[in-house]
Amino acid sequence: MIAADWGSTHLRLYRVDGDGMVRERRRSDQGTQASRGRHGEVLAEALAGWDDDTVLLCGMVGARGGWHEMPYLDCPAGLDDIAGQLQRIHPPGFEQRALWLVPGLRDTVSDMVPDAMRGEETQLAALLDVLPGGVHRVCLPGTHSKWVTIHDGRIQRIHTAMTGEVYALLRTHSLLGALMAADDGRFDGYAFDAGLRRSGDPGGLLHHLFGVRTTGLSGQFGESALPSYLSGLLIGHELRGGALSQEGPRPAQVHLVGSERLLAAYARALTTLEIGVQRHPEDLAARGLHALWRRRSANLAVAPPAALATD
Amino acid sequence: MIAADWGSTHLRLYRVDGDGMVRERRRSDQGTQASRGRHGEVLAEALAGWDDDTVLLCGMVGARGGWHEMPYLDCPAGLDDIAGQLQRIHPPGFEQRALWLVPGLRDTVSDMVPDAMRGEETQLAALLDVLPGGVHRVCLPGTHSKWVTIHDGRIQRIHTAMTGEVYALLRTHSLLGALMAADDGRFDGYAFDAGLRRSGDPGGLLHHLFGVRTTGLSGQFGESALPSYLSGLLIGHELRGGALSQEGPRPAQVHLVGSERLLAAYARALTTLEIGVQRHPEDLAARGLHALWRRRSANLAVAPPAALATD
Repeated sequence: MIAADWGSTHLRLYRVDGDGMVRERRRSDQGTQASRGRHGEVLAEALAGWDDDTVLLCGMVGARGGWHEMPYLDCPAGLDDIAGQLQRIHPPGFEQRALWLVPGLRDTVSDMVPDAMRGEETQLAALLDVLPGGVHRVCLPGTHSKWVTIHDGRIQRIHTAMTGEVYALLRTHSLLGALMAADDGRFDGYAFDAGLRRSGDPGGLLHHLFGVRTTGLSGQFGESALPSYLSGLLIGHELRGGALSQEGPRPAQVHLVGSERLLAAYARALTTLEIGVQRHPEDLAARGLHALWRRRSANLAVAPPAALATD
Repeated sequence: MIAADWGSTHLRLYRVDGDGMVRERRRSDQGTQASRGRHGEVLAEALAGWDDDTVLLCGMVGARGGWHEMPYLDCPAGLDDIAGQLQRIHPPGFEQRALWLVPGLRDTVSDMVPDAMRGEETQLAALLDVLPGGVHRVCLPGTHSKWVTIHDGRIQRIHTAMTGEVYALLRTHSLLGALMAADDGRFDGYAFDAGLRRSGDPGGLLHHLFGVRTTGLSGQFGESALPSYLSGLLIGHELRGGALSQEGPRPAQVHLVGSERLLAAYARALTTLEIGVQRHPEDLAARGLHALWRRRSANLAVAPPAALATD
């Protein structure tokens, strides 16, 4: 089978064998935004030379404004629930393959305002496939950081923080960004820790952000350290603001899923707050899609639901 | 005398008579940023036809990267303190006039990180000139909202929130902005109130911001109401995050200084939180500069400080 993680900015393809091992991988910057109006064409090109029948797609490809809008599945939802809601689509030009979309997940009960995810549920599926029962807290940091609570194999709660997007906005377009050097990927641990500490002071985020400016102008942190200070400040607000306290007491441990660079920052912040960390690689999507497909096949073998009979 | 309020984006000039009455006014978009490298030229043109000897300038014109950097004056500072620190500059082409710059104010003791203002101290000077003794809380909403505590005629504490800038960034450059109609100046009180209420929920600002997206996607607020929801959310976080609680209990009343549109939003939010409001017009700067000049002249008549003897 082929597992496709198709987000706003990237298309990642994995050729997965029957045991769930990734045999080949492809990656392009033909995200769903760049592919608007020609999703079929982009996917056909990306798949060229791979003759597998089954293609599972997750991510923004199923969002409104993507290729084909998939309704959200409500939490709590486990592997079987998600696998049962895979939906086959029949775009022209793919008569030789079976294309399936994964639904996003929605949480309408934990908070006054609904929360949702699209794409991350597939990375989580890989974890659901291996984690033991009980309660687990998972964080997938990024443009929109996802915090998830798993209860006995089902995703119970979704809590999103716009940390990454706000960081990028401030870095690129704000008066604060003007005080900072171009992003060279360097990480200043001392400045990061100072920003993290600052997030625990009274005053609120909007006030602390202005402090980044005075901190920069006063020379306390130079233009190359200031981005790390801002990062520590925002991640600190994400953690203290509600991500950790979303349900009862702070967790003893958090599972982190994401790129090495982001995970290093989040692990540092969580460790400072005396919370244990277990890291997982970013590319769980292939494993998750395979787990969903395996689960769906197993369930169908037992009792094929009528609604899927025509597929 | 001529009072000049020269900020990053605008230059406002007022011709003030001996009694402090504004006789003429001029306004241009030649802010200090647009005027970089040719401040003298811009000012000379803007003053053409006004033959007054004395010109008092406040705002970003005295910032680093402005025309002439003025050091900050530390809080607490009252009218006499500020008036005593006016500094005369002698740029070429202004031999026939006396140009004076007003220092910005800095608060290095109230919080772990210093806070500061440049320009607003002049609007506050107009208030200092008329307010009775005791404690007063003043808010000057804007790109960077300034909250000030006045104790017996002296500015004691400065607390800035980056509310206006963050609003503009999100509106213009974020995924949230993509869900909103172009700004037509319309205000949706119902959506504003909902955002304000939301700011009191647990979860933190970064989480609530993502909720603006789901609120928009779910259709709860349409593209023309969503900006008011975001505005209420951000102003709510500004108020609850620390602006109100900066010193002891919440004040019974807040003085608001600013444009009618902004003041309407802040007054609505404060009233909802059961805090009284007294509004003041935006163009206090002319009155404030006149008050500073009058105070300086009076003090000099009593005891001219040696340091100013050469002016």
